[in-house]
Amino acid sequence: MSPEVLISEVGPRDGLQSVAATMPTEHKKRWIAALHAAGLREIEVASFVPAKLLPQMADAAEVVAHALSLPGWTVMALVPNRKGAEAALKAGAHKLTLPVSASAAHSQANVRKSPLEMVDEVRAVLALRDELAPRAKVEAGISTAFGCTLQGVVPEDDVLRLAVALAEAGVDDVGLSDTTGMANPAQVRRLFRRLAAEIGDKAGAAHMHNTRGLGLANCLAAYDVGVRTFDSSLAGLGGCPYAPGASGNVVTEDLVFMFEAMGVRTGVDLGKLIAARGPLAAGLPGEPLHGMTPESGLPKNFTPAEAAHA
Amino acid sequence: MSPEVLISEVGPRDGLQSVAATMPTEHKKRWIAALHAAGLREIEVASFVPAKLLPQMADAAEVVAHALSLPGWTVMALVPNRKGAEAALKAGAHKLTLPVSASAAHSQANVRKSPLEMVDEVRAVLALRDELAPRAKVEAGISTAFGCTLQGVVPEDDVLRLAVALAEAGVDDVGLSDTTGMANPAQVRRLFRRLAAEIGDKAGAAHMHNTRGLGLANCLAAYDVGVRTFDSSLAGLGGCPYAPGASGNVVTEDLVFMFEAMGVRTGVDLGKLIAARGPLAAGLPGEPLHGMTPESGLPKNFTPAEAAHA
Repeated sequence: MSPEVLISEVGPRDGLQSVAATMPTEHKKRWIAALHAAGLREIEVASFVPAKLLPQMADAAEVVAHALSLPGWTVMALVPNRKGAEAALKAGAHKLTLPVSASAAHSQANVRKSPLEMVDEVRAVLALRDELAPRAKVEAGISTAFGCTLQGVVPEDDVLRLAVALAEAGVDDVGLSDTTGMANPAQVRRLFRRLAAEIGDKAGAAHMHNTRGLGLANCLAAYDVGVRTFDSSLAGLGGCPYAPGASGNVVTEDLVFMFEAMGVRTGVDLGKLIAARGPLAAGLPGEPLHGMTPESGLPKNFTPAEAAHA
Repeated sequence: MSPEVLISEVGPRDGLQSVAATMPTEHKKRWIAALHAAGLREIEVASFVPAKLLPQMADAAEVVAHALSLPGWTVMALVPNRKGAEAALKAGAHKLTLPVSASAAHSQANVRKSPLEMVDEVRAVLALRDELAPRAKVEAGISTAFGCTLQGVVPEDDVLRLAVALAEAGVDDVGLSDTTGMANPAQVRRLFRRLAAEIGDKAGAAHMHNTRGLGLANCLAAYDVGVRTFDSSLAGLGGCPYAPGASGNVVTEDLVFMFEAMGVRTGVDLGKLIAARGPLAAGLPGEPLHGMTPESGLPKNFTPAEAAHA
């Protein structure tokens, strides 16, 4: 039976670019293969950014090539601009994701462009995609969609206006990211409902953070209003943690456990997913791994969703 | 404006009886006063059990007396049986809570009685209450309501049958406890909906654990189907943690943050609540404190529910 939700693993990109150490390429390949073996069907494996800015991502093209050698999944790469997109498309990535901040302050600080200038950049990427690799998909992820550490509240209308502009520019889908861990379930439901009302089936993924412990509650809230793609990171790696012990990204293991326990098929094998922490730990010695389900284990007589439906 | 949800703090009972160290009585009093100052309006302050079994609770009567000296809140005590109830009622507790396990295996292991034999014990407690302190309330908390580490799955019909028996016996309310951290949001919604359908306004609190990271998602799910009382523990203290770093009880700070951020009034001042970690830490040196919101702080320009409504 086909999965009912798509878990989009972002650890090899979002996670690895957030830690100080650089995982050696061979270790990245082993980790990515383990994630594939666990049944994940979408993965963000690299950022195409200058190696002097993010040395952790200097092997992006090689890592994408490796991920493409594994069948039946979507290989994504983050690109900040047209130049990165060119490299990612040449490497053969199935899908590009472009972060576009809804907060003017965050956008300036991050890419020295306003949100609307970023929409122009997205248009340039789309034109390039049409030229170089017309079958590749382009996603825009609206960062700081639920609040910003610089400007505080981000008006919901600003987020929606930006989403509409991106959809009209021609992206395949628009996701909403809680970059700063400020989202709450009521807000998540409001914004994703409005997003679907405005841009229909271009409404994309929920990228939630666990900064204040609400990551899974916010994913549940998004699921309740029809979101079916969820970004998360194995062992909660990455996502700009604020404090020691505070994970940023939603932990893939706990997210998959939640859905499977609810009877919602993820297509992911929880045992193999937890086993994929091994190659992650081997490639990043000493890095703390988050996640409650791996520590406590699965409940006695646990029934995954597929078996529960059968 | 009056609170829309009742946060029932269980740390001084559930938390303190789960840790190896004993908090000195004077420290307990200071901590309880800090919790009161934060705006909490219900608190479980002690267990009335033999001091040789739980030396941490040997000062239960004195702690109850202190809590009763603080105005405007409900002072609860856990009692396992008629004997404990007698002591708690004589100490003046406003409300007793009796754990009754839905799992026959857990019930035998814990109190050497079947669930139905425990209903008889609850009847004896109610008779005593009518005699000694007719204004005191009695709550039954159904433990292992969402699964059991001994027997695995606990049939929902068993839980509902027990809840009806307890309501018919005359308890004031019946809560459901995820003693083992096995609950998921779909199950939480099903069971609390059925509970309300069966026993109406005797349907009580959600006592969720964060063993597998789903504590807040399960509280949200319970809220969605009408639950308005939530048990939680400051700093996530207690609740039978399974593994180092894995907190058991839902963290009060994160739970209050979730509701306040959603615009749901808790009556609790988040700053003062986080400050109440000070006396907890002072009374239990070296004990790890959980909670993401205290570590990351409140979001920039955070608006609590009361101000948002104003």
